[in-house]
Amino acid sequence: MKPNVLSKMGQRTALPPISWLMQTALTRHKLISLAAGFTDNAALPVEISRKLLNEILRSPKTGQPALQYGITAGENNLRTLTAKHLQKLDGGHDRAHSPGRVLITGGSQQLLYMTLEALCDEGDIILVEDPTYFVFLSILQSRGIKARGVKLERDGIDLAHLENVLERLKNSGELRRVKALYLVTYFQNPTGVTTALAKKSAALKLLKKFERAASHPIYLLEDAAYRELRFDHGKDVPTALTLPGAAERVIYTGTYSKPYAPGARVGFGILPEPIFTTVQRIKGNHDFGTANLLQQLLACALETGLYDKHVAKVRKNYAHKARVMKLALAKHFPPSVEIWESGGGLYFWARLPKGISTGANSKVFQSALKNDVLYVSGELCYADDPSRAKPDNEMRISFGSASEENIRKGIARLGKVLRKFLI
Amino acid sequence: MKPNVLSKMGQRTALPPISWLMQTALTRHKLISLAAGFTDNAALPVEISRKLLNEILRSPKTGQPALQYGITAGENNLRTLTAKHLQKLDGGHDRAHSPGRVLITGGSQQLLYMTLEALCDEGDIILVEDPTYFVFLSILQSRGIKARGVKLERDGIDLAHLENVLERLKNSGELRRVKALYLVTYFQNPTGVTTALAKKSAALKLLKKFERAASHPIYLLEDAAYRELRFDHGKDVPTALTLPGAAERVIYTGTYSKPYAPGARVGFGILPEPIFTTVQRIKGNHDFGTANLLQQLLACALETGLYDKHVAKVRKNYAHKARVMKLALAKHFPPSVEIWESGGGLYFWARLPKGISTGANSKVFQSALKNDVLYVSGELCYADDPSRAKPDNEMRISFGSASEENIRKGIARLGKVLRKFLI
Repeated sequence: MKPNVLSKMGQRTALPPISWLMQTALTRHKLISLAAGFTDNAALPVEISRKLLNEILRSPKTGQPALQYGITAGENNLRTLTAKHLQKLDGGHDRAHSPGRVLITGGSQQLLYMTLEALCDEGDIILVEDPTYFVFLSILQSRGIKARGVKLERDGIDLAHLENVLERLKNSGELRRVKALYLVTYFQNPTGVTTALAKKSAALKLLKKFERAASHPIYLLEDAAYRELRFDHGKDVPTALTLPGAAERVIYTGTYSKPYAPGARVGFGILPEPIFTTVQRIKGNHDFGTANLLQQLLACALETGLYDKHVAKVRKNYAHKARVMKLALAKHFPPSVEIWESGGGLYFWARLPKGISTGANSKVFQSALKNDVLYVSGELCYADDPSRAKPDNEMRISFGSASEENIRKGIARLGKVLRKFLI
Repeated sequence: MKPNVLSKMGQRTALPPISWLMQTALTRHKLISLAAGFTDNAALPVEISRKLLNEILRSPKTGQPALQYGITAGENNLRTLTAKHLQKLDGGHDRAHSPGRVLITGGSQQLLYMTLEALCDEGDIILVEDPTYFVFLSILQSRGIKARGVKLERDGIDLAHLENVLERLKNSGELRRVKALYLVTYFQNPTGVTTALAKKSAALKLLKKFERAASHPIYLLEDAAYRELRFDHGKDVPTALTLPGAAERVIYTGTYSKPYAPGARVGFGILPEPIFTTVQRIKGNHDFGTANLLQQLLACALETGLYDKHVAKVRKNYAHKARVMKLALAKHFPPSVEIWESGGGLYFWARLPKGISTGANSKVFQSALKNDVLYVSGELCYADDPSRAKPDNEMRISFGSASEENIRKGIARLGKVLRKFLI
């Protein structure tokens, strides 16, 4: 009996393309992985968390509530602190930053998942950056949602191309299926690109312009997962939440995982109606709300200022590791490779000359593996979009979890590999 | 512009019927809630958790991993400990209890959700107990999955009725849509019923018998959330995992939330292929795996034996509170109310004479509210099944979170209300 018992979604849901990379990294001891998007072990707030958990669980006022069920939307204290935190990051703006619109989730990944559940039926369309965050693409693929790519420039999406894509979808009658534009706006995974505020503003206006033809709202879904991992001396860019109309059209997702601790996974979002109410109900069906103990930990970290102190430390750490990688790249990589340096986050983006493939079956990848170094093939980060071929000459290289020494060694190994194929 | 931007699921997902009950309980101070399924605050392992988290975060070997990302299926240590724990509960059985089939989740609720994602398209059918766990019904409703009720007796489902329901579905050509039978097998929510092993075995055989006509497997989905909250002197009933064929057909879900701490939410499942692989992938898209810090906490609690010690204490506590409720019921409730006492869990089930409604708009409910006591209307626990009318003369009353004094007072108030309508 063939097990056609699975749902269509169950049948579609594929092995994440990254999992064999991670499996490979775990099983080969000499291998240096520049592939993983893990944060740096050495930079985790072990002592802070121990101290705060002690305080929470020692006090009768907080100990029991931390171990009890809570409210689906999240603890009110943490929702308020989160709204304030975002207001502060946005320079005091409070246009769309009210605690009542904040939803606490098990990482921002869960919020992305539930937002897509709330918005999209099979066959609906989400516009994404080309390239974009590959786990987001996995969700789309699994749920039968189509992705259409918008070209990415060094300061965010190509607005003319966005308009062009929207026009084409309008002309083909598909605009009714378009629900949102998904942008990873800070130190983007995989390219490290940060989207300029002017581009967010222009994109929001463009979406609005096409709403009549779509006959429903088209949301700007802003994923700011890496926002607090800024380490250059540039100023933080305000979020799309600060723009006119944001309260009705911007879905913002962020996380404490990357800046604080992935193991104490807490993410959050600010959502407009009717998405807020719908996602909150969906969250009720998923898990009734994120574990209180973790919510209390983050609330305490924010309240005591230890969160900010920790983030400052983390930024210095990544700044240093990024510098180490930059120097190594300059030393070892052939000049024909274009490097997109980032001012934050965990990744650099390397673009090889066209025609040189970096995919899993390519000579470059196989040779890298033979030389015990791993990267993420750029092609994994491109949506299945029939309107263009997937570029396959790029790679994401991470300085997040590798040690300083391994960054140097890994880049040297990778440089050696590339020099076999390039000048 | 009307926001028809939501997905079909988004539009379907309703406010959980329980939420206004909870809201009412939170806003009225004199109100005694016998409605909530919360565990007892006083029985939460505050001191144990503080001690264990200290140890985990003090050791360099465990501190960093606890705050880092992990593996989607869950920490191998916890998976192994969970498999062993279940083996022990099942009297040494290891038929289907291998760590490789264990999946760790954010509570068993998340596992139920993802299992339904893996198995069911809109229009598919799940057989449920009549009555059953109402949040499970919310998931079905939200996802457009149909439920068909199977009569519940004091020792589990009515097997003749199960066969009858399957026959009817076969004759109507709907058997192809039937994916699973969902049973809450221990101290069921809401009735407190525990399913006899013989009934699990017979049900599994019946499902198997109808598989040919369904042309795919039909799973037994065993939800054992309350299993460890046993407080009578009866012996634990083995799970369906101990039955022949279980490794291929039983999906088992359990949780550490209820016996340990809902605020450190960790659940688990044992799943057959291809469900295990599919749900694991879906879990990757949801959140890449449950927060490591919570997984480590539970692993340590299990490893040190503190978990077992705590559960023993919790059982005594609930045994006592259940006794208090039993005595209060005997004293205050009219004899025409049939009480289903439970040997564990958090709930008693009260059946009023037919014709006396307990629904939210009923005189009984409104009068109870006026007298500051809250219960869960039985009708909320019945699936929308066109083949029978929903019984509306029952109530779920919980001794979980209310204090001993409030159990006495609450039952006295409720008894006074009932005596107005009954003899």
